[in-house]
Amino acid sequence: MDDDTATEILEATYRALCRHGYADLTLKDIADEADRSKAVIHYYYDSKENLFIEFLDFLYERYTAQLPAVDGGTPREQLDTFLETALTDEGVAPAQEFQTALLEVTAQAPYNDAIRMRLTKFEDIFFERAREIIAAGVETGEFDETVEPAVAAEFLMAAITGAHMRRVASNHSSEGSYEAIAQYAERHLLADELSEATQ
Amino acid sequence: MDDDTATEILEATYRALCRHGYADLTLKDIADEADRSKAVIHYYYDSKENLFIEFLDFLYERYTAQLPAVDGGTPREQLDTFLETALTDEGVAPAQEFQTALLEVTAQAPYNDAIRMRLTKFEDIFFERAREIIAAGVETGEFDETVEPAVAAEFLMAAITGAHMRRVASNHSSEGSYEAIAQYAERHLLADELSEATQ
Repeated sequence: MDDDTATEILEATYRALCRHGYADLTLKDIADEADRSKAVIHYYYDSKENLFIEFLDFLYERYTAQLPAVDGGTPREQLDTFLETALTDEGVAPAQEFQTALLEVTAQAPYNDAIRMRLTKFEDIFFERAREIIAAGVETGEFDETVEPAVAAEFLMAAITGAHMRRVASNHSSEGSYEAIAQYAERHLLADELSEATQ
Repeated sequence: MDDDTATEILEATYRALCRHGYADLTLKDIADEADRSKAVIHYYYDSKENLFIEFLDFLYERYTAQLPAVDGGTPREQLDTFLETALTDEGVAPAQEFQTALLEVTAQAPYNDAIRMRLTKFEDIFFERAREIIAAGVETGEFDETVEPAVAAEFLMAAITGAHMRRVASNHSSEGSYEAIAQYAERHLLADELSEATQ
C-alpha cells in the first residue's frame, strides 16, 4: 500500500469532515477534497465506515505524537499547557467545524463498537495524562496534598468534554469555560500558599 | 386540538426515542408506540422535525415543573439534590437510552436552529438554577465567600454535561462522575469550617 496516498486521503477526510459534517459525508466528498477519483478511495478503503475507523486511528497517532510537547516545565505549567491546548483556539484545539463533526461521530458511538472503542482510547490517554500531571504536582508539593489525582483528573475531563459540547451545541464561548476551568485549577489544586499568592 | 391525544403522542415519542434512537426514528415508530395510525400522528404534527420541536418544548415544561422540588432545605442540601437529580439513577435523571438519543439530537443542533434554541433554553434554566443555589449559599455563609456563583455554576454545568456525554459515548460510570463532582462541591464550595468537618 502506498502510504503517502493513504495519508493524503486521511488528511482530505479531515477537511471534508469540517466542510460537510459526518452524517452527510460521502466517499465522493472525500475524493473531491483529495483531488482523486472515487475508485482510488475505494481501492484503499472499502466503505465510509472503514475509512472512518482508519481516520480515528490516524488522529490518535497524530495527537499522541503531540503529547510530549506538554512535558517541559513544572506540573503547574504542564497543567496550564494541557488546559490551554484542550480549550483555547491558541492551542492546537481542533477548529469549531471539526468539533462539530466530532460530536456527530460521538453520537454514533453508542451504536458502533469500533467507534466507541477508539473514542475511549482517546479519552483514556487524555485522562491518564491529566492524572500524571496532577500526581506529579502533589508529589512535588506544588498541588495540595489532599488532592486525589484520579478524582481531580476525572472531574477535569468531564468539564473539558462538557465545555466542548456546550460550545458546539449551543454556542457557549469556550473562553468562558476555559476561564472557569483554569480558575478551578488555580484555586483548588494548587497548595494553599501558592494559590493565595495568585489572588 | 385534543390535548390528551397530543400529550399521548409526545409520551409515545419519548418511549420510541429510547427504543430506536433519533437518527432511525420514524413517524411510524411513534404511531406504533402510541397505538395510533400514522394518519393521526400526521394530523397533529406534519413532520418528524416539527413533532420533535414540540417534543423538546414538552420536555422543557415537564422539567421546569419538577424544578421547584429542589427548593426545600439549605443551599447545601439544595445543591446535593441538584447534583443527585442530574447525575444519579436514583434521581429523576433520564435513563441511559434517553441520554443516548439526546446526544444524537444535540449533535444535530449545530445544523438546526430550532433544536439549538431549545437546547440552549434547557441549559440556561439549569445554569440559572445552579447559580441561584450557589449565590444563596455564599449569601448565608454556607459556601465560601470567595466563590463566584456564575463561574462555579458554569464549571458545574460543563462537568455535568461532560459526565453525561462520557457515560453515553464511552460507558464511563456516572457514579464515578457523580462522586468526583460531589467531592468538588463538598471541598471547594463549602466554607472552610464546614468543609473540614466533613472530611
